[in-house]
Amino acid sequence: MHAVIIAGGSGTRFWPKSRENLPKQLLSIVGQETMIQNTVDRISPIIPVKNTWVITNEQHAFETCSQLKNLGFSPSQLLTEPIPRNTSAAIGYSAKILSRNNPEAIMAIFPADHVITTTEPFLKLLKQAEAIANENHLVTIGIKPTSPEAGYGYIKQGKLITGNSFKVDRFIEKPDKLTAENFLKEGGYYWNSGIFVWKVSTLLNEISLYLPKLHEQLEGLSINTTPIKGKYPYQKLSKPGAEIFNSLESISIDHGVMEKSNKVAVLPANIEWNDVGTWTSLAAISKNDPHRNVISGNVVSIENSDSIIQAEDRLVAALGLKNIILVDTPDALLVCAKERAQDIKKIVEKIKSEKRPEVNTTISETRPWGNYTVLLKETNYLVKRIVVLPGESLSLQSHKHRSEHWTVVSGVAQVQIGEISQTLNANQFVEIPKGAKHRLANRNETALIIIEVQLGDKLEEDDIIRHEDKYGRDD
Amino acid sequence: MHAVIIAGGSGTRFWPKSRENLPKQLLSIVGQETMIQNTVDRISPIIPVKNTWVITNEQHAFETCSQLKNLGFSPSQLLTEPIPRNTSAAIGYSAKILSRNNPEAIMAIFPADHVITTTEPFLKLLKQAEAIANENHLVTIGIKPTSPEAGYGYIKQGKLITGNSFKVDRFIEKPDKLTAENFLKEGGYYWNSGIFVWKVSTLLNEISLYLPKLHEQLEGLSINTTPIKGKYPYQKLSKPGAEIFNSLESISIDHGVMEKSNKVAVLPANIEWNDVGTWTSLAAISKNDPHRNVISGNVVSIENSDSIIQAEDRLVAALGLKNIILVDTPDALLVCAKERAQDIKKIVEKIKSEKRPEVNTTISETRPWGNYTVLLKETNYLVKRIVVLPGESLSLQSHKHRSEHWTVVSGVAQVQIGEISQTLNANQFVEIPKGAKHRLANRNETALIIIEVQLGDKLEEDDIIRHEDKYGRDD
Repeated sequence: MHAVIIAGGSGTRFWPKSRENLPKQLLSIVGQETMIQNTVDRISPIIPVKNTWVITNEQHAFETCSQLKNLGFSPSQLLTEPIPRNTSAAIGYSAKILSRNNPEAIMAIFPADHVITTTEPFLKLLKQAEAIANENHLVTIGIKPTSPEAGYGYIKQGKLITGNSFKVDRFIEKPDKLTAENFLKEGGYYWNSGIFVWKVSTLLNEISLYLPKLHEQLEGLSINTTPIKGKYPYQKLSKPGAEIFNSLESISIDHGVMEKSNKVAVLPANIEWNDVGTWTSLAAISKNDPHRNVISGNVVSIENSDSIIQAEDRLVAALGLKNIILVDTPDALLVCAKERAQDIKKIVEKIKSEKRPEVNTTISETRPWGNYTVLLKETNYLVKRIVVLPGESLSLQSHKHRSEHWTVVSGVAQVQIGEISQTLNANQFVEIPKGAKHRLANRNETALIIIEVQLGDKLEEDDIIRHEDKYGRDD
Repeated sequence: MHAVIIAGGSGTRFWPKSRENLPKQLLSIVGQETMIQNTVDRISPIIPVKNTWVITNEQHAFETCSQLKNLGFSPSQLLTEPIPRNTSAAIGYSAKILSRNNPEAIMAIFPADHVITTTEPFLKLLKQAEAIANENHLVTIGIKPTSPEAGYGYIKQGKLITGNSFKVDRFIEKPDKLTAENFLKEGGYYWNSGIFVWKVSTLLNEISLYLPKLHEQLEGLSINTTPIKGKYPYQKLSKPGAEIFNSLESISIDHGVMEKSNKVAVLPANIEWNDVGTWTSLAAISKNDPHRNVISGNVVSIENSDSIIQAEDRLVAALGLKNIILVDTPDALLVCAKERAQDIKKIVEKIKSEKRPEVNTTISETRPWGNYTVLLKETNYLVKRIVVLPGESLSLQSHKHRSEHWTVVSGVAQVQIGEISQTLNANQFVEIPKGAKHRLANRNETALIIIEVQLGDKLEEDDIIRHEDKYGRDD
């Protein structure tokens, strides 16, 4: 069995923790691991990491490879999308790539950002699904509802097919509360989990029937996929491939195939599953305090109840709150009534329409070589902390508009300026004049940390000319 | 007429904006000016600044002088208290100092942190109070209530004395809501404003009757008060004076004198007055939006009502809040139910008991020479922005535990290290080795801004040996 993990999060619903540059699957929402790490790890007893593929947006490729590195994930099994084009595109493209080696392989689809706490029953279920998929069914996992959730799509079971699986009577979009209550009472309705199991050939055949244009276009994607050069040689679409991808119809696999195909089977799942759709989900998947709060970080809490308070290092003092969501990050704070959690996207839209940076990035950004944090940004100067991981180096670069001043505060820096290289220890300093070609590297086994002071008339990330980069970046 | 402004705020109720180092009177809660600036400025048409005295805690002396400098306030009229000892001590001490030059002067007492928006009627009232005080009354200003406030003390008027003033029937501590409603209905009850007008000699005589021990001790304070050396030569108690001050009884002037003396008169005031006792006061003294919110700073607000949202530069996104107080600062955030505003002191007590720094200081601290902001603090390194005002200089100092790296980002720095002085322009750098005597000065007419990186095994403000200081600081 092969796995394809769909990592297409847009970073909206978990704002301000999630950003466009850092969607939900790349965050640790519960526990230490990130959601995509949990997703890969969870299925590994039955689907080895060497059979696990991930498809994600181009801009998240490095971070995804970096997060999955210690799990043994190979960057050559990371596919990237130039832009989001919904699940039919992502799944069709993945299936086409898998079919090159083994068109009869069983392929299981997992969203990268769901929580499943009952791993063993889940894995047992996947084995059942594999058997049903081998009989040319498109198997969708239907979660047995435990509450009348209006926020989920539902699947109504039809007649029994084989094993414990059923024909699908119909798919139901998010129902109203009353309808959801009736579903729960009546039984035979399941939450649509977005987890699917099928044979590659079965799926591609159904795509050819119901999304024939997509089916035609998949060939063009497949032959235009090549590994990039650099530290993480993930699979990228070349320019013609990206052009085809951009022209694909944006339609979900549910609408495009599942609701039309007569090969669909639903396999009911009695597992603890949560799609972690909003901040309120935290109350269901985390340990609550006696007043039903979920509190983390540097919080002084007095007499709050039913609230979600997620702080970081900065002190958050909360007093007398009820049904409040509060999420603090270094550059943006969200405070919202719990009942309005679904409307956080309104906030994100408003911020986006005002072209504020807090939608895209945090003040701390990860890079293939480590990370940086902006400590202060003023018109003509900017202060950053830069962390370079052991063995890594920044690109050989220069800047048109700024000089840079580096003070090493931890580790050992190899600094090249023009043709001259030097070694700097903690407590040593160097200036990079405007326009000079330079490179910062860490050849030691501990992290290198420098404080950078930039001075110039334009202090933007895009004032960077890369002359050479080990990570294959050219922009 | 002389004014004595009592600036004894403890920084509790307006936390996190106020801190022990920065109490309410030194903040601009409404408008551009700070509360103490407004207080001095408001009375200046009838009490010239040369007749205005301020009494405040020692630790706020520099900042108070600095804030009042442009109003023409002379530091020699700033008295300081080594520790807070309530209003009898502060007022008695001030009266004793005034009596040295003119025991028959009229002295008006003003809290430094109240809001009065109707200046003209207020000044007219003060002139009336002056006339009554000349007849040896202790005049207290009673504000005509406009609502049944349970948070204020009340004064009940007795029989008419002279002008529009009355004998005081009795003083009433904060009543319950019902009693306050009856007061409002009945009439003849006034809010106790803490504004007093009397002859210095009358007050001292009443102190000798009702607080005889204090009266004796005042002489010891008076002869031990001397101006400090340095930029702001305010009046400081020498060691014997401070010892006396520390031993004074801590009692309010209301309890100590006003409730006992038969010379007390209340002058009813029909003015707009607010003691700005909690964050909720902001709704009364600020411009509200159509949903009764008071919002300032970098806020994205969607469908909030009856809330106070005070942000700074950091983005605050608020959605669907009702009756919430939210105050954001760089190092601490307060979020609280509006009805719990009185309990913010519980938060402050808890933070204090946990010995967190956020009670005392902000990340930006003002100094006689300018200010600094801590941008990042880690175990072995610390990053600061330092702003030195034109013409100012830090002390000649050295550090036992740290080296410092300075990059000039704006202005021109005069840097002395050991015996060597140098001039550094923007984009220049210098290292201060551990243990080296050094001084940073700004001899130009624009602000000097440097980024400082400290490295060492102990990075505390108290690792500073001052060899010479133009502001008279020796610790």
